Amino acid sequence: MSKISVVMGSKSDWPTVKEACLILDQFGVDYDKNVISAHRMPDEMFAFAKNAVQNGTKVIIACAGGAAHLPGMVAANTPLPVIGIPGQTRALGGMDSLLSIVQMPAGIPVATTAIGKAGAKNAALLALQILGVTDPRIQQQIVQYRQQMHDEAKESGAHLD
Amino acid sequence: MSKISVVMGSKSDWPTVKEACLILDQFGVDYDKNVISAHRMPDEMFAFAKNAVQNGTKVIIACAGGAAHLPGMVAANTPLPVIGIPGQTRALGGMDSLLSIVQMPAGIPVATTAIGKAGAKNAALLALQILGVTDPRIQQQIVQYRQQMHDEAKESGAHLD
Amino acid sequence: MSKISVVMGSKSDWPTVKEACLILDQFGVDYDKNVISAHRMPDEMFAFAKNAVQNGTKVIIACAGGAAHLPGMVAANTPLPVIGIPGQTRALGGMDSLLSIVQMPAGIPVATTAIGKAGAKNAALLALQILGVTDPRIQQQIVQYRQQMHDEAKESGAHLD
Amino acid sequence: MSKISVVMGSKSDWPTVKEACLILDQFGVDYDKNVISAHRMPDEMFAFAKNAVQNGTKVIIACAGGAAHLPGMVAANTPLPVIGIPGQTRALGGMDSLLSIVQMPAGIPVATTAIGKAGAKNAALLALQILGVTDPRIQQQIVQYRQQMHDEAKESGAHLD
Amino acid sequence: MSKISVVMGSKSDWPTVKEACLILDQFGVDYDKNVISAHRMPDEMFAFAKNAVQNGTKVIIACAGGAAHLPGMVAANTPLPVIGIPGQTRALGGMDSLLSIVQMPAGIPVATTAIGKAGAKNAALLALQILGVTDPRIQQQIVQYRQQMHDEAKESGAHLD
Amino acid sequence: MSKISVVMGSKSDWPTVKEACLILDQFGVDYDKNVISAHRMPDEMFAFAKNAVQNGTKVIIACAGGAAHLPGMVAANTPLPVIGIPGQTRALGGMDSLLSIVQMPAGIPVATTAIGKAGAKNAALLALQILGVTDPRIQQQIVQYRQQMHDEAKESGAHLD
Amino acid sequence: MSKISVVMGSKSDWPTVKEACLILDQFGVDYDKNVISAHRMPDEMFAFAKNAVQNGTKVIIACAGGAAHLPGMVAANTPLPVIGIPGQTRALGGMDSLLSIVQMPAGIPVATTAIGKAGAKNAALLALQILGVTDPRIQQQIVQYRQQMHDEAKESGAHLD
Amino acid sequence: MSKISVVMGSKSDWPTVKEACLILDQFGVDYDKNVISAHRMPDEMFAFAKNAVQNGTKVIIACAGGAAHLPGMVAANTPLPVIGIPGQTRALGGMDSLLSIVQMPAGIPVATTAIGKAGAKNAALLALQILGVTDPRIQQQIVQYRQQMHDEAKESGAHLD
Repeated sequence: MSKISVVMGSKSDWPTVKEACLILDQFGVDYDKNVISAHRMPDEMFAFAKNAVQNGTKVIIACAGGAAHLPGMVAANTPLPVIGIPGQTRALGGMDSLLSIVQMPAGIPVATTAIGKAGAKNAALLALQILGVTDPRIQQQIVQYRQQMHDEAKESGAHLD
Repeated sequence: MSKISVVMGSKSDWPTVKEACLILDQFGVDYDKNVISAHRMPDEMFAFAKNAVQNGTKVIIACAGGAAHLPGMVAANTPLPVIGIPGQTRALGGMDSLLSIVQMPAGIPVATTAIGKAGAKNAALLALQILGVTDPRIQQQIVQYRQQMHDEAKESGAHLD
Repeated sequence: MSKISVVMGSKSDWPTVKEACLILDQFGVDYDKNVISAHRMPDEMFAFAKNAVQNGTKVIIACAGGAAHLPGMVAANTPLPVIGIPGQTRALGGMDSLLSIVQMPAGIPVATTAIGKAGAKNAALLALQILGVTDPRIQQQIVQYRQQMHDEAKESGAHLD
Repeated sequence: MSKISVVMGSKSDWPTVKEACLILDQFGVDYDKNVISAHRMPDEMFAFAKNAVQNGTKVIIACAGGAAHLPGMVAANTPLPVIGIPGQTRALGGMDSLLSIVQMPAGIPVATTAIGKAGAKNAALLALQILGVTDPRIQQQIVQYRQQMHDEAKESGAHLD
Repeated sequence: MSKISVVMGSKSDWPTVKEACLILDQFGVDYDKNVISAHRMPDEMFAFAKNAVQNGTKVIIACAGGAAHLPGMVAANTPLPVIGIPGQTRALGGMDSLLSIVQMPAGIPVATTAIGKAGAKNAALLALQILGVTDPRIQQQIVQYRQQMHDEAKESGAHLD
Repeated sequence: MSKISVVMGSKSDWPTVKEACLILDQFGVDYDKNVISAHRMPDEMFAFAKNAVQNGTKVIIACAGGAAHLPGMVAANTPLPVIGIPGQTRALGGMDSLLSIVQMPAGIPVATTAIGKAGAKNAALLALQILGVTDPRIQQQIVQYRQQMHDEAKESGAHLD
Repeated sequence: MSKISVVMGSKSDWPTVKEACLILDQFGVDYDKNVISAHRMPDEMFAFAKNAVQNGTKVIIACAGGAAHLPGMVAANTPLPVIGIPGQTRALGGMDSLLSIVQMPAGIPVATTAIGKAGAKNAALLALQILGVTDPRIQQQIVQYRQQMHDEAKESGAHLD
Repeated sequence: MSKISVVMGSKSDWPTVKEACLILDQFGVDYDKNVISAHRMPDEMFAFAKNAVQNGTKVIIACAGGAAHLPGMVAANTPLPVIGIPGQTRALGGMDSLLSIVQMPAGIPVATTAIGKAGAKNAALLALQILGVTDPRIQQQIVQYRQQMHDEAKESGAHLD
């Protein structure tokens, strides 16, 4: 029973999604991950989404590319917050994924992050921020994570050559 | 038991979808129409798609706008051909709807037509062409419909002023 | 001390943002709202963001258009989850707002919703879903809200004419 | 006399179109394939389209890139359903091909699939679904094909590392 | 037997195309105009294009919108220079028309002008410039036309208030 | 004194423009070629354009990328037909070049061809077609060139494997 | 002899450009304004740009729409800083103007502001900031102008209803 | 105390920004450079911007990619002219960076240059032109720099082969 569920529409999304998982590992927050294709595994997708609350999931992260229906369809089947990562795509760069995920109709939001790996990292951080709303330890970890990012960014300016 | 099922994600799609229905009326082919929202009525959507074959449906037409998941999710749940009409949208003109519908991953096609009312008319005509593959009467009606379009287009050139 | 803070970059965003507030009203969740311009009130923006945690805020909703820096800059100054609403724009429809908000670099996520009023409604719902992660009453309200949307959508199909 | 005709605007489209042919091979459905350039072989294109019905063709698949006129012009000359595959392009990713194919005016639809190889696979599957409307054996093959996709997708989730 | 043939894909293009005709009127160069739909009147289109040389036509102007195939398909059937005017479109502003016309494959050029009425005016002027290559009188008219534009533009600066 | 002048905004356009020159070579039509940068050599550009008629030039081909002002500014300074080739660009694929060239205001047309090398070839062919309006030998060469393209395209269909 | 020269490609740009002038009026900085069309008045444009330094101009503001060559071509003919305002356009919203102005090649910058009226206001403010680099009075005015914007923005938050 | 401050949002922008620095080196104008991330170092960013005037800075150059808030947020905190360089991005080519930087609301301009390295070079040249408004030596250097560019461009035309 993990607090965060990470799903992707295809195993080909894994190099992107892995960036999210590495951050969750770093924060030591339990999560499960799986391939759940909206189009090839629609029944599993619905079951996954409908069971998420009773499985103890608190936040769902979903990544998909192209006509990226996974995040929105999961969101339609659970009252939990769903975070969508638009996969980068060969032909259109990920504009297709982005619009398919972010342009949800009124009623069913998907919390959309940036296209590709930066978006995957941010999906993990956003899930942690959501847990941090009522978990001061995680919120504190976010603060520390940012401090470290801050220090590294600041330090990097000394090495422009 | 109608051969063509016409569904739309929201009643606000009706002015667009009506253009399809008017053509089906004109051809005298039986159809049913309904609002089935992928995000607000996901169970009905799945039931609709899963039952389509046994209900005697031959072709499905689905219209949606924005993150337009309806055509693709219906397609994922039926072996019938699914035609998708991208709704025109206020912010992005319908580019969001178009990419959400047409950029389906390998395995689950959606036969996508043009954005908006022209696409709705063409969705009906495409459904009729599909039925016409084995129904010579409908194929003949297509030929006649085109002849009429031809004559009207040709005639219209005499009235440029 | 409200749980949700709603800010917008300009009073001209209010017709959009109002859609979010109406939903928060409907759910009976306390919120505060204000104009905080990233570019014209940068100090207030930073103070707002930096004080949010100690003010008891749990989730922030920020709307901006064009070079929409408000959501991302607020996010950079608080560990709370920040939801960004891209305002629709005259020249580019809101594509500028969307990309300015969603394409955040790794480290500082903004939970982006759709362009314009649908996005504003969804920002409110997403904020409520986030509170609902640990507040069963709100989560239940979400479920009820969706049931009502479901019923209305389903019923609307009977009135296509 | 094959049921499906596959045409492409240039031999350079073959690596894309081959994906469609491999699926048709897999389903054991007879097809013919050829290069028919709308712009360099217009007479052959018209003859091909006008003769398709009497040649026993049931569905036409056409791939083209850039100002991709082949699918639409074939469609204008036959009452058969025509499926268009937008070729990926170097400069614009295939957005040019997509819009040239999908934005057909009212009256002459082209059933458009995704840009590039995924679209080619889906064009083949869509053609098979169309034949499957009245050929239960092919419809059954579609169901089996999907079951296999489903199983592979499901299985792939166990190998994320 | 006019030197310039002006064709449009639909009578709905006439308000745009009229701008071209008004300029041809102003220059006193004979032209004919007609509706020739690539998709609804393909045979007439081919006949028109194939007969243009022997009919004494020197330059062809073709306007179309959406999947705008008319200019390119006319060009494929005549060695005469063909000028394409992309019609403005409701959903995508004319980007679809523009790409469908300008992105012709190597071998068959279409001389593309701007989207909409400015493009129509320029199509006429370009046709006149082409005739002017060997007709000094027309070239001189172009020079005079520009002088007048110059004078009007220059004069207009005195009336900014 | 060559009939066709080929200019480019930068030597980096040469690999693109060379495609045009190879076709002019093939047709045996005399041409001159040069780098004339609109932004770095504005005076030479104006002198080039203003002198073109008296130098005996009949058609000008101009290639530029990014903010591609060369074709339009040359066109503003000569009554000769000017053909513009949009260079492909790293960041935006050439959409910037295309819009900078094709969206000319009413009064000064640029005959725009496709982005990149296909556009360069077509610029040469268009220039030849323009000369062919009154030079039957060149028009005949165009017909033969097309016949050869036709034969090669037709033949290529036999080699899909 | 004014320090700022404001030029526009067409009188139709005046409603946009007026926004710049109103700000210059408000700051009490002398400026001249004129219509100088790059394409219809190329010689005046070059003369204007080449004479700007000796006329005592310090900064140039240029507005144009579509294939907006005016700012870049002025910039190519003067060492003064040139600010470009992309005009909003009917068909493409101003994306064409923006790319034509901002995507200048290395060597000749144009300081580009936002599309339309906001960009016009900002062009004036940017010109004033440039003068303010060495004119403490103007820099102080900028600070005061911002303070007023700040106060108005802050105050506006009290009137959301 | 340098006259020009060059900042970038991430060390990954350095290969782009270096192009600006090389030009500043070439002109012998003193500058400082640093990594200042808007999102990871917001306090340093504000301090940097607020102190710029009293530190003797005259012009600021800021480069960022994606949701590129650095230039605009620096501009919001200083009355100095701020030049923004949109970084090229993997997914969207830099369109996201461009719109995030250029589409600033009325009141706070950012002088935006082209995407990527050409934009970086031009940012340096623009900064120099701004200093050149009151520093005749720098203005003269600009004139010489352009003369050299002119000569190189002109000379390059002799080497097309």
